Amino acid sequence: MNTATTPYVLRNDFGAAAHLTLNRGAQYNPLSLDMISALRTHILEISSDASIKVVVLKGAGKGFCAGHDLKEMNANRNEPWLSALFGQCSALMQDMLACPKPIIAQVHGVASAAGCQLVATCDLAIATTETRFSLPGVNIGLFCSTPAVAVSRAVQTKHALEMLLTGQSISAQTAAEWGLINTAVPAEEIEVHIQRLTHVISEKSTEVLALGKKTFYQQAELARSDAYTVAGKAMTHNMFLEDSLEGINAFLDKRSPRWRS
Amino acid sequence: MNTATTPYVLRNDFGAAAHLTLNRGAQYNPLSLDMISALRTHILEISSDASIKVVVLKGAGKGFCAGHDLKEMNANRNEPWLSALFGQCSALMQDMLACPKPIIAQVHGVASAAGCQLVATCDLAIATTETRFSLPGVNIGLFCSTPAVAVSRAVQTKHALEMLLTGQSISAQTAAEWGLINTAVPAEEIEVHIQRLTHVISEKSTEVLALGKKTFYQQAELARSDAYTVAGKAMTHNMFLEDSLEGINAFLDKRSPRWRS
Amino acid sequence: MNTATTPYVLRNDFGAAAHLTLNRGAQYNPLSLDMISALRTHILEISSDASIKVVVLKGAGKGFCAGHDLKEMNANRNEPWLSALFGQCSALMQDMLACPKPIIAQVHGVASAAGCQLVATCDLAIATTETRFSLPGVNIGLFCSTPAVAVSRAVQTKHALEMLLTGQSISAQTAAEWGLINTAVPAEEIEVHIQRLTHVISEKSTEVLALGKKTFYQQAELARSDAYTVAGKAMTHNMFLEDSLEGINAFLDKRSPRWRS
Repeated sequence: MNTATTPYVLRNDFGAAAHLTLNRGAQYNPLSLDMISALRTHILEISSDASIKVVVLKGAGKGFCAGHDLKEMNANRNEPWLSALFGQCSALMQDMLACPKPIIAQVHGVASAAGCQLVATCDLAIATTETRFSLPGVNIGLFCSTPAVAVSRAVQTKHALEMLLTGQSISAQTAAEWGLINTAVPAEEIEVHIQRLTHVISEKSTEVLALGKKTFYQQAELARSDAYTVAGKAMTHNMFLEDSLEGINAFLDKRSPRWRS
Repeated sequence: MNTATTPYVLRNDFGAAAHLTLNRGAQYNPLSLDMISALRTHILEISSDASIKVVVLKGAGKGFCAGHDLKEMNANRNEPWLSALFGQCSALMQDMLACPKPIIAQVHGVASAAGCQLVATCDLAIATTETRFSLPGVNIGLFCSTPAVAVSRAVQTKHALEMLLTGQSISAQTAAEWGLINTAVPAEEIEVHIQRLTHVISEKSTEVLALGKKTFYQQAELARSDAYTVAGKAMTHNMFLEDSLEGINAFLDKRSPRWRS
Repeated sequence: MNTATTPYVLRNDFGAAAHLTLNRGAQYNPLSLDMISALRTHILEISSDASIKVVVLKGAGKGFCAGHDLKEMNANRNEPWLSALFGQCSALMQDMLACPKPIIAQVHGVASAAGCQLVATCDLAIATTETRFSLPGVNIGLFCSTPAVAVSRAVQTKHALEMLLTGQSISAQTAAEWGLINTAVPAEEIEVHIQRLTHVISEKSTEVLALGKKTFYQQAELARSDAYTVAGKAMTHNMFLEDSLEGINAFLDKRSPRWRS
């Protein structure tokens, strides 16, 4: 396989669900600068694609994603390049939060370092029971400080620090108990679970999902009274969307809604 | 029953515990503008009622509360009315946090949308095992953005987003695991559990509960060092309350305290 | 035993692990002003001790720590003394967070009030299964407002309020489920668990642990985009530490790293 011409990320749409596959499976899909760039491009394209309601992010090969590309980092140990790498990676994470479509991580095998950060950053996550999650940077002298931003906002402090300070991996079952993922399911059932979840979300209004996701992350960073101001305005705005009129009328008429978006 | 003259909220005091019952059980106690207003009035009255140590909030009929009154909202789809509704509802939630008495949700049947927000906003919550919790607004084109303010401060991010993006309900057992409620108990035992909990809190000093609850929500929004400044001042102030002198002396004398408040 | 000359805190180093023992076991190791002062001195000394990689904090006698010294507080019920006490105690907690070495609580018997705050403030915590955790100040008219700062940042809101408002204790099993501690283990196995954990952390680079811990608590208080700015800079800085060069090279060469620090 000529990796020079192989896309870093594959996109396959199934109905309203865009499936993005990290496509360097033989190397556990490292978040190289090119991989980050390809992923950002897809997320931005999907953000304005009216045919898409929900995104699934997964990895080719034996694991989801094992973090950055250490060889690439080692070969570019200079301040501008490294700043660009971490800057681009953080920008990717913020693109994912800013993407108006919910993003679901479909995780198998390994999610470590920036790969674990991807999982923590997705809105929802389902993993196969054999998946291992870790923030192992401390083992190689490079503390997982940027992954910690996402993971410490997804799980409780002592759990995040256990991963960060020991560098040891946790099981999918533990990741589910800690709130890093929503569910752990047997490998042979994960496709069905992902299908069910994308189907449920595809039944919603695109515009309402977009408004809701945006407001959620906006209010989450505010003091409670400011959060209520922002969320209250979003609710009023939401009531004037055609899909809200349709949705409430359909509910009161006991029929299914026909969304405009 | 003439609902025009039926109070929206009933208050019954049992010792130092004020029980507030949402009293539109036939409609799952919708948080209409009148219901919100009635509840605010009771919370404000109780806030300055020296005979009350603790509040129980519950619903008449088959469920706790199913959220706002969709018919009322649909009939008032204009900006001033809707802004007032969400503004009043947010004010209610903040009144509950500002109320100097601990508020316990006694939940059964259904707690959805703004009803789930009420549960998340109460200081403590006990539900019957058959209760279903949901943020189903997305199903009818009206994302639960204001409920998300309370729920995302009570549970972890992925759990809140699972409720918000799928619109699906969770069990009381799951709500307890996620920290949305304190405990799920069989329906036939909930009264006993509520009695035990209100009894335990009724044994405390009113003034100390008030200072503690206020300081808790105040420090929770601050950076840690500012939180310590606020909490440290509260502790010093607390030490000069008569009930602290009495409580510490009683403890050192191995007797029960006799509170002034 | 002449307590006047008995040190408040004992330090014993085992390899790169400094074990600090609160040494007033007969009184459940109260956090008196002298105890706080002794503990701060040790933490500050260890902070700049290049031979130490990790700290274990434990208590002599039948319990870890039962909070402040009530007799001392009662005898000094004046504003300057009490302000100094709570100020010193908050400073201790912030010294622990600022200490560049990870601090592990080894908890047994009792961790209540400021003792529970110590556990919540440690980076990691292992307790014996019979340990009871509580924030019982409300029972004696002195709400645990400063302990609440640490505990409410370690566990979910309803769990923190359950402890604060009822004053009742929880088991080590519950503390582990709530995220207040990392693990509960049988008393006869706790030494082995602590040894394993200190051994794992002792294998890391001192300088990398220090950078990672500092960045973790710094980013945790920021809005997400600011957190990424801080963490991204820390990652770039980390890449220029000698131990990062060594660690990544060792990993790529499939050998163990030889840290400079």
